Amino acid sequence: MLAEIITIGDEILIGQIVDTNSAWMAKELNKIGVRVKQISSVSDDKEHILKALAEAAARAKVIFITGGLGPTKDDITKKTLAEYFGVGMMEDKDALENVARIFAKYNRPLLEVNKLQAQVPANCEIILNKNGTAPGMWFNHDGVIYVSMPGVPFEMMYMMEDGVIPKLKNTLTLPSIIHKTLLTVGEGESFLAERIADIEDALPPYIKLAYLPKLGQVRLRLSAFGDDVALMQKGVDEFAGKIIERIGRVFVVAEDIPLEKAILNKMAEKGLTLSVAESCTGGYLSHLFTQHAGSSKVFFGGGIVYSYELKEHILGVKPETLAAFGAVSEQTVKEMVEGALLNFKSDFAISITGIAGPDGGTEDKPVGTVWIAVSGMGKLLVKKYTFGNKRQQNIERSAVTALSMLNTLLTDVAD
Amino acid sequence: MLAEIITIGDEILIGQIVDTNSAWMAKELNKIGVRVKQISSVSDDKEHILKALAEAAARAKVIFITGGLGPTKDDITKKTLAEYFGVGMMEDKDALENVARIFAKYNRPLLEVNKLQAQVPANCEIILNKNGTAPGMWFNHDGVIYVSMPGVPFEMMYMMEDGVIPKLKNTLTLPSIIHKTLLTVGEGESFLAERIADIEDALPPYIKLAYLPKLGQVRLRLSAFGDDVALMQKGVDEFAGKIIERIGRVFVVAEDIPLEKAILNKMAEKGLTLSVAESCTGGYLSHLFTQHAGSSKVFFGGGIVYSYELKEHILGVKPETLAAFGAVSEQTVKEMVEGALLNFKSDFAISITGIAGPDGGTEDKPVGTVWIAVSGMGKLLVKKYTFGNKRQQNIERSAVTALSMLNTLLTDVAD
Repeated sequence: MLAEIITIGDEILIGQIVDTNSAWMAKELNKIGVRVKQISSVSDDKEHILKALAEAAARAKVIFITGGLGPTKDDITKKTLAEYFGVGMMEDKDALENVARIFAKYNRPLLEVNKLQAQVPANCEIILNKNGTAPGMWFNHDGVIYVSMPGVPFEMMYMMEDGVIPKLKNTLTLPSIIHKTLLTVGEGESFLAERIADIEDALPPYIKLAYLPKLGQVRLRLSAFGDDVALMQKGVDEFAGKIIERIGRVFVVAEDIPLEKAILNKMAEKGLTLSVAESCTGGYLSHLFTQHAGSSKVFFGGGIVYSYELKEHILGVKPETLAAFGAVSEQTVKEMVEGALLNFKSDFAISITGIAGPDGGTEDKPVGTVWIAVSGMGKLLVKKYTFGNKRQQNIERSAVTALSMLNTLLTDVAD
Repeated sequence: MLAEIITIGDEILIGQIVDTNSAWMAKELNKIGVRVKQISSVSDDKEHILKALAEAAARAKVIFITGGLGPTKDDITKKTLAEYFGVGMMEDKDALENVARIFAKYNRPLLEVNKLQAQVPANCEIILNKNGTAPGMWFNHDGVIYVSMPGVPFEMMYMMEDGVIPKLKNTLTLPSIIHKTLLTVGEGESFLAERIADIEDALPPYIKLAYLPKLGQVRLRLSAFGDDVALMQKGVDEFAGKIIERIGRVFVVAEDIPLEKAILNKMAEKGLTLSVAESCTGGYLSHLFTQHAGSSKVFFGGGIVYSYELKEHILGVKPETLAAFGAVSEQTVKEMVEGALLNFKSDFAISITGIAGPDGGTEDKPVGTVWIAVSGMGKLLVKKYTFGNKRQQNIERSAVTALSMLNTLLTDVAD
């Protein structure tokens, strides 16, 4: 079953917001065997929206539309849909009640402009929006299903989970897709490809292999398409097994999860705990861990030690060390990791100190110079890296590299 | 000048990665007066790519293509472009030298598969990729420019900045677009719209107003299109001034910058410093600050105090307080913010403690219960919030709400 996603709104086209909705929707749809053929972002412009709808309807059986449902004048999705379907607008009772309920909940007066939120094209079925005033809309027109939802991510997400996905399952006869993802770290895409070339050549036609590189990691995704789920699962498992055996230690986990989640899972299984001392990554590494439910079983927390004073106060880094070698040095990063283990009392700790840029570089220590230490159970890894001159990338690379080092240390401890 | 962006790769369509490239490209293009008409994400499928190229060429004069340039078998962009243009492939000398240079830099052997990276369609001009082996490609075909770049964000970003944008400026005669964005916090989209309805109605036809809501904030974006830059700038400034005067204290700053950056700027101007004590936000708030260059002028750092022990050790929260009232309580959040001010010696501090979920909720304190305190210069704001039951949203809302509270406190201090 093919679907398309159309996101409506100038804010994506001028780059003011990143479209995170589409990836989330595509992932959820894949789980139920709906494959997204194309994602199109178009402007708040009637003719453009009409054209995009017609193009998508020629390619797919289900079309998801997000955005342009707000109460303000630049939001034209509803009227455009009514024109596309050749129907008028009507007030929906349930949608109006929902608007009134939400305004009552927040003790705000219900303005006339808010009541307009309950006006919908006459041929639609309403999908309740628990978290906002714009109703979702379901249309079945000439054999194609159209679902229009708000662009605010959490409104759309609840609506998909509670209303749209169950309704799709009831309405459609869905074929199957099986994905299996192997997370690897520390080896480039082309080297992996060379090492498993013969396995890739031997893949049956119903299985596809994709390489998804991202900052020092490569995900290998095997995807099987068809109707015989047992055969598909067997094929995917068999080839995944062959690849895992071949690539050896660069393999981390056979799940489509982020590296830090794989580490949290490993550590939770073994009852190990972790803390951090972050300087140049400024909380990003902690955020990677703590975004995951259940991270508190493993992750105690740590210090964001941007200033010299906090390195001393929170971690006990010696002022003499900072004075003699500077904050970005092997000596400091070691004292940081030791300070984290000692003060935060975790089994393992990570420390990172570097120059994220764009300022603060010197000839000796240019922007992108980063020291990372990981330590625990009597083992210590310390390494200096020279990344690039983009701040955000230095932050992300430092964090991912630290994760990779911790993964290595954990593997060594387990062996 | 209209452009389109086509991203190629199944990984976006199955939701494995979020397309951050397009937003970044759109933003950079807007700055030079190139307006993105549509963004399309299509699969690694020859027919689909050919169709998307033809559709885009019918609407726009410049087409940017990202992705599908890796050395592995699922990457088919180059061959498909050659077929689209009706040309053969050739080896490019500069591209091959670049591949050799990069492999030499990392001391890795140059495999045959890597040399394939230097094979490009015969009608292209190479754009150097300093950070990777896949060259960028520039085509001029039937009056339309096509630019193909790697999908790896930082490779694409460098290539755009160093090669593509300068070349576009030299090649095209560009019209002008002016945007002015007003950041507001604490008032909903429809209330703002109601308050400025008459100003919006009086906008001249060359100026458009858009509302961009996001987690408690609404950006009001005025966009002017045309050739008379002076007139456009005057019009935009005049209407921005009227809106700012009307909306009063919900207005934060007349720049398209994030709320935390506006706060950093305000504090830097006044020489004020900040630290944090984060529990349920787990580093996310610190990351918001530290992602910005120059944040170290204002931001000292702080504690990620996920565990009871770290709340006590780093911040000096009393064990009796935790035992009597729990970690998620008014008493604890106050001791946390006081502990941050005392121990980290900043002018202002933020503390956050709550239940991000999905586990850990009780009847008294359901998932989504969050206490936030901001304090400094003798002032203190403490407030309890009840957000929803989605972890990531609770983290983001807590951080943004804390920022909003700090903004209020800073405004009060300044008044």
